Amino acid sequence: MAELTSEDFMNAALAEARAAAVIGEVPIGAVVVKNGRIIGRGHNLREHAQDSTLHAEILAIQEACMTLGSWRLEDCDLYVTLEPCPMCVGAMINARVRRCFFGAMDPKAGAAGSLVDLLSDTRFNHQVQVVGGLKARECGAMLADFFRAIREKRKAAKRTGQSLNKQV
Amino acid sequence: MAELTSEDFMNAALAEARAAAVIGEVPIGAVVVKNGRIIGRGHNLREHAQDSTLHAEILAIQEACMTLGSWRLEDCDLYVTLEPCPMCVGAMINARVRRCFFGAMDPKAGAAGSLVDLLSDTRFNHQVQVVGGLKARECGAMLADFFRAIREKRKAAKRTGQSLNKQV
Repeated sequence: MAELTSEDFMNAALAEARAAAVIGEVPIGAVVVKNGRIIGRGHNLREHAQDSTLHAEILAIQEACMTLGSWRLEDCDLYVTLEPCPMCVGAMINARVRRCFFGAMDPKAGAAGSLVDLLSDTRFNHQVQVVGGLKARECGAMLADFFRAIREKRKAAKRTGQSLNKQV
Repeated sequence: MAELTSEDFMNAALAEARAAAVIGEVPIGAVVVKNGRIIGRGHNLREHAQDSTLHAEILAIQEACMTLGSWRLEDCDLYVTLEPCPMCVGAMINARVRRCFFGAMDPKAGAAGSLVDLLSDTRFNHQVQVVGGLKARECGAMLADFFRAIREKRKAAKRTGQSLNKQV
């Protein structure tokens, strides 16, 4: 069996992101990989669970910890479709993740280079190597499509509302 | 009934920290408060669960979200015995917590002023007011006592080991 590549793992993260989109969540997905094997998966579940901590990365890290029976994810890599926020970056530092591969940049909340760069900050007790921009176009397009669809639904609802108003 | 004060809520966080110490976890505790009522509690469970995300603050935020049935913890205050790390600070930004009261400073991982100050960073979409040093002496003493006891246990084990070695 051919060894899986970084692109394959990002595709797995994209599949998680699609699983989020299907249920109306902002499509962000993540996987944790050790020795060429996926040991944790997650997708954004904030709205369904009404829990602000349930980002894709947190869920993937929690599953990986469960798989290994250890809170230390040394020699593990995390793949996520969007640049992680401070919470998820902090979770990677705490778990001692080796490398973080992300897809699209997040200029509004990104903590792996966009707004701050916590993963490389040597004042913390662990640093995580960062590889940004992996399948960035596909990751970004999935988010853009999701938000475009929401805007169109809202516009349609508004039009329906206006025509209803005219009838009143 | 007299209204509860910030000190009362930090005492509740300290009670959570003690619950962590009893089971051998680093004693850090947190509570989330809304309208003068505790709606979420948590203490560090990293070792027991072997899950690096299970800091006191994350557990308190998750319980508060469940209590309110909402991921938005607007008008909520979080009390924690130790200055929060980047993960927990990020969780507070994501949950839109109003204020963070913490006890002892954490010069090694603190992200509310010690190493970085993310809660006041206006580039993020939400800022959290910070009040540091609330019952700092008591919060710090609980941690110091915990680590002193661990060192003493280790020394005792080493002494026992040495005398055993002599017998061999």
